[in-house]
Amino acid sequence: MRAVVQALQQGQRFLLGLHASPDGDTLGASLGLAAALRSQGKTVDVVCPDPIPVTYRFLPGADEVLGWEGVAGPYDALVMLDCGGEDRVHAPVSLASLARLVVNVDHHATNPGYGDVVWVEPEAAAVGEMVVELIDALGVKLTPAMALPIYTAIVTDTGGFRHATTRPRTHRLAARLLEVGVDPGAVSEALFEQLTLPILKLLARGLQALAVDPDLPVAWIVLTEDDFAQTGTDPSLLDATGLIGFARSLAEVEVGVMMRPSGPGAMRVGLRSKGGVDVSEVARGFGGGGHERAAGCTVEGDPAWVQARLRTALAAALARGGSIRAKTP
Amino acid sequence: MRAVVQALQQGQRFLLGLHASPDGDTLGASLGLAAALRSQGKTVDVVCPDPIPVTYRFLPGADEVLGWEGVAGPYDALVMLDCGGEDRVHAPVSLASLARLVVNVDHHATNPGYGDVVWVEPEAAAVGEMVVELIDALGVKLTPAMALPIYTAIVTDTGGFRHATTRPRTHRLAARLLEVGVDPGAVSEALFEQLTLPILKLLARGLQALAVDPDLPVAWIVLTEDDFAQTGTDPSLLDATGLIGFARSLAEVEVGVMMRPSGPGAMRVGLRSKGGVDVSEVARGFGGGGHERAAGCTVEGDPAWVQARLRTALAAALARGGSIRAKTP
Repeated sequence: MRAVVQALQQGQRFLLGLHASPDGDTLGASLGLAAALRSQGKTVDVVCPDPIPVTYRFLPGADEVLGWEGVAGPYDALVMLDCGGEDRVHAPVSLASLARLVVNVDHHATNPGYGDVVWVEPEAAAVGEMVVELIDALGVKLTPAMALPIYTAIVTDTGGFRHATTRPRTHRLAARLLEVGVDPGAVSEALFEQLTLPILKLLARGLQALAVDPDLPVAWIVLTEDDFAQTGTDPSLLDATGLIGFARSLAEVEVGVMMRPSGPGAMRVGLRSKGGVDVSEVARGFGGGGHERAAGCTVEGDPAWVQARLRTALAAALARGGSIRAKTP
Repeated sequence: MRAVVQALQQGQRFLLGLHASPDGDTLGASLGLAAALRSQGKTVDVVCPDPIPVTYRFLPGADEVLGWEGVAGPYDALVMLDCGGEDRVHAPVSLASLARLVVNVDHHATNPGYGDVVWVEPEAAAVGEMVVELIDALGVKLTPAMALPIYTAIVTDTGGFRHATTRPRTHRLAARLLEVGVDPGAVSEALFEQLTLPILKLLARGLQALAVDPDLPVAWIVLTEDDFAQTGTDPSLLDATGLIGFARSLAEVEVGVMMRPSGPGAMRVGLRSKGGVDVSEVARGFGGGGHERAAGCTVEGDPAWVQARLRTALAAALARGGSIRAKTP
């Protein structure tokens, strides 16, 4: 961490890079760090290859995130937060041509350690946690402008302090952020109570489609083009429905699977595990990837064929790993 | 608090009383306190007028909660945790005949202060928080047997640290409970990932029924007997669906309403507000009650008639209170 602090102290003009398909952590951590650096009179641009999802637009500064077309280097440093690989920012030019220094701050255990200055802490529940440490080390006083996005980073990446990654330090940091003035009820409302009717109708159709496998502890949700057409939605809204989480929520289920058409002749597959099966292994078998409990892949073939292949892979994975897991808290 | 600690120190045989329709807080706080008192060699019974919901059966000791038929006094003290009124335990005899001392520990601002020893702290996000303070004051070392139910009390009563009631202290206590060994992922799975297929199918039907009012920022879910019959469910499962929360979750909605048949010629009504309208006032107008953001009532009449009366009441409440609320975090 020392080297990161030094880079932040010495530079004057920074570019903070969000990963593609930005989530609350890459965005919140970046906006929090941007506010801290600006409070020290430094210049900061924030860049993202994709639009910021509506859910996060309540964060001050979210509307000022640039696309790559708005970025003109060179910067003293490009700081990439929550980017598991250097390609995750989708930069149109080499990172070295953008900034004198590439700083890699992440909590993905799989981070390969790219960049000139690297701080990867897999134990951190969110990169937002690491940004608070940076702010402290810089001697910057935490303000509401920093606390709100950082709290949002932590609350989204831990599923509201629910995930097993949540550690005592996560809660102690949350306590500090509330003390600075974050209103947890207002953040919760902004994140979870700004849905649209089409999103809820898509959720309803997905739940109608949900079926438990006759032989395996697996729940399947197979969506069709019709599900999107009839509800006036598109797959980009699936995240907001929380649909795949429901597939895993059944007592008798170990793995939840959601499938949707992805271009002609292929299905996009999401996998969620309660922990007894490493679904990233299953996804890797189909050229995908992810984490132990959340992974995905794209599989060619019609829905029935894709489902059959997945069943076989899941049956094997369940046979291997199904007994390793303690079921009681 | 001092007087409560004294009562706990002096007594040897305790009865802890849960409120009817027990939630995670009354149960978790009581099981946590029971474990603490037992660690000091005291005898503790826990009583509840209703069965413990399946959701909470993972808590050690949940299966040993007695019904009133299993209780034989007199006890040195009856300690009521999270009971907003003395009638909430549905005791078949007078409380005074059960125990020498009635101890009232609660966080409901509306608690009338019944009992011989009273500690009401409306700022506490959960009575679970108060029990940690008691355990500390008793000089008892926090163990996993105490930490797990207390963590469950806090996480359920704050909606996973989401509600506006969550304060810095709530997070600091959570940090301590994790340090003692609580696994947040396992608790989350036990609480939220033990659903049944009928529950999800009921949720699907409820979402299909959801409609936004043409004139008011109100979302309506009107359930019929058929919704329960077709899904093989009954109204006791509605809580587990989280359905009413979805009614409030729409961006353009200020109040979510869920109605279901309740006996012949009447509807049970649940109301959820984002905070701009005090729905407990609306509910009181129909002989019900509750909190500012969550209330309920039973209204006689057919669904259309009940909905029409509620619309009028909600339109008036929205006109009164709709502008008082700050919308951004």
